[in-house]
Amino acid sequence: MEKAVVSKATLGRLPEYLRILKELDPDKVTHISATTVSKMLGLGEVQVRKDLAAVCDGGRPRMGYSTPELIDNIERCLCRGTPTPAVLVGAGKLGQALLQYDEFERFGVKLVAAFDSNDRAIDLGGKTVVLPMNSFGEFCKKERIRLGIITVGKGSAQEVCDSMIGCGIKAVWNFAPCKLKVPEGILLHNENLALSLAYLNNQLCNQNPEDTTWKPKTIQ
Amino acid sequence: MEKAVVSKATLGRLPEYLRILKELDPDKVTHISATTVSKMLGLGEVQVRKDLAAVCDGGRPRMGYSTPELIDNIERCLCRGTPTPAVLVGAGKLGQALLQYDEFERFGVKLVAAFDSNDRAIDLGGKTVVLPMNSFGEFCKKERIRLGIITVGKGSAQEVCDSMIGCGIKAVWNFAPCKLKVPEGILLHNENLALSLAYLNNQLCNQNPEDTTWKPKTIQ
Repeated sequence: MEKAVVSKATLGRLPEYLRILKELDPDKVTHISATTVSKMLGLGEVQVRKDLAAVCDGGRPRMGYSTPELIDNIERCLCRGTPTPAVLVGAGKLGQALLQYDEFERFGVKLVAAFDSNDRAIDLGGKTVVLPMNSFGEFCKKERIRLGIITVGKGSAQEVCDSMIGCGIKAVWNFAPCKLKVPEGILLHNENLALSLAYLNNQLCNQNPEDTTWKPKTIQ
Repeated sequence: MEKAVVSKATLGRLPEYLRILKELDPDKVTHISATTVSKMLGLGEVQVRKDLAAVCDGGRPRMGYSTPELIDNIERCLCRGTPTPAVLVGAGKLGQALLQYDEFERFGVKLVAAFDSNDRAIDLGGKTVVLPMNSFGEFCKKERIRLGIITVGKGSAQEVCDSMIGCGIKAVWNFAPCKLKVPEGILLHNENLALSLAYLNNQLCNQNPEDTTWKPKTIQ
């Protein structure tokens, strides 16, 4: 199966499938079923069955999947073979937090450089370099960067986005709390950090209808 | 309508609805239809109709919604009247980024304090205090905190989570890249920052099947 576009939920579980599959002895476990995988991870069988079918079409009744084929398909789906290099613009607190976040590589993305208009030295444990913005275009073109992360404020986010697209970037992950405009064919994901918290809060406020005595105190 | 649990997507659009509704002259625009709202925001009518119906049951054919009633219902849904106070544990880069993020209040949550085991002074423009962990329990109980954010590393996330629950916190937003265990009745949202990027990358890798010449370069 060629690389497939899978749902975000499925994608989130792939590194776990990969981890347990790689722990198996390939000489002994040549085939594995969705049922076995679901038991090993304590996940629902229906869910695992759907996930594996979405990334690999080699499953056979009774036999299950060929273990190496399944591993190979999951790795392709996670773009593991050739991690996609990504750049980040805006090395403030959030940018620095993302630069230090070590989960991206499990999901096939490697943050290769960060850029900031503020040409200060930033200590990131020697891991990633923060470069001045005037070297951005050249870097992106030279390294054939296709994935960009925006962690500047909303005032300069559109400008940074335009600049990214001008340098050949095809997918933009935007953390600035504003809507960006991109030409057709460019992938854009606006990350709204507040939204997950709002959703949790909404559930919290609705969770205990019987607990009418409790109200959050308003704090100025 | 009592406060309703609505989808994350709907919740994400509520502040925009609220913003435009509040800009209207309440004496002139006593009623408003989903069609009008959708035109004002350039959103799909079906979507707006569904969103408004989810938060307010007062819509009438031809009349639309009573504008003040709709505003009131959206505000309840966003818990705007009494923003829910939340605390954060782990004032590292990510924690500081969240403390400086000014979108939470639009969604009915107010970050009232941050705690860190490292008792250093952190400059957040005077906005939020970072307190030592030994004052955490007392603070949460006194201020009746129900919402907690975990931005410590995965090594201490479970311990922080247990401590939050012990102090009366009912909903936990976890940024540590690990699965946490919580008792029944506690709301937990594990935020996987890598996942949005992985999803974007997955789409990117599958976007141009005709562009077979382009492959991301692997950068060491």
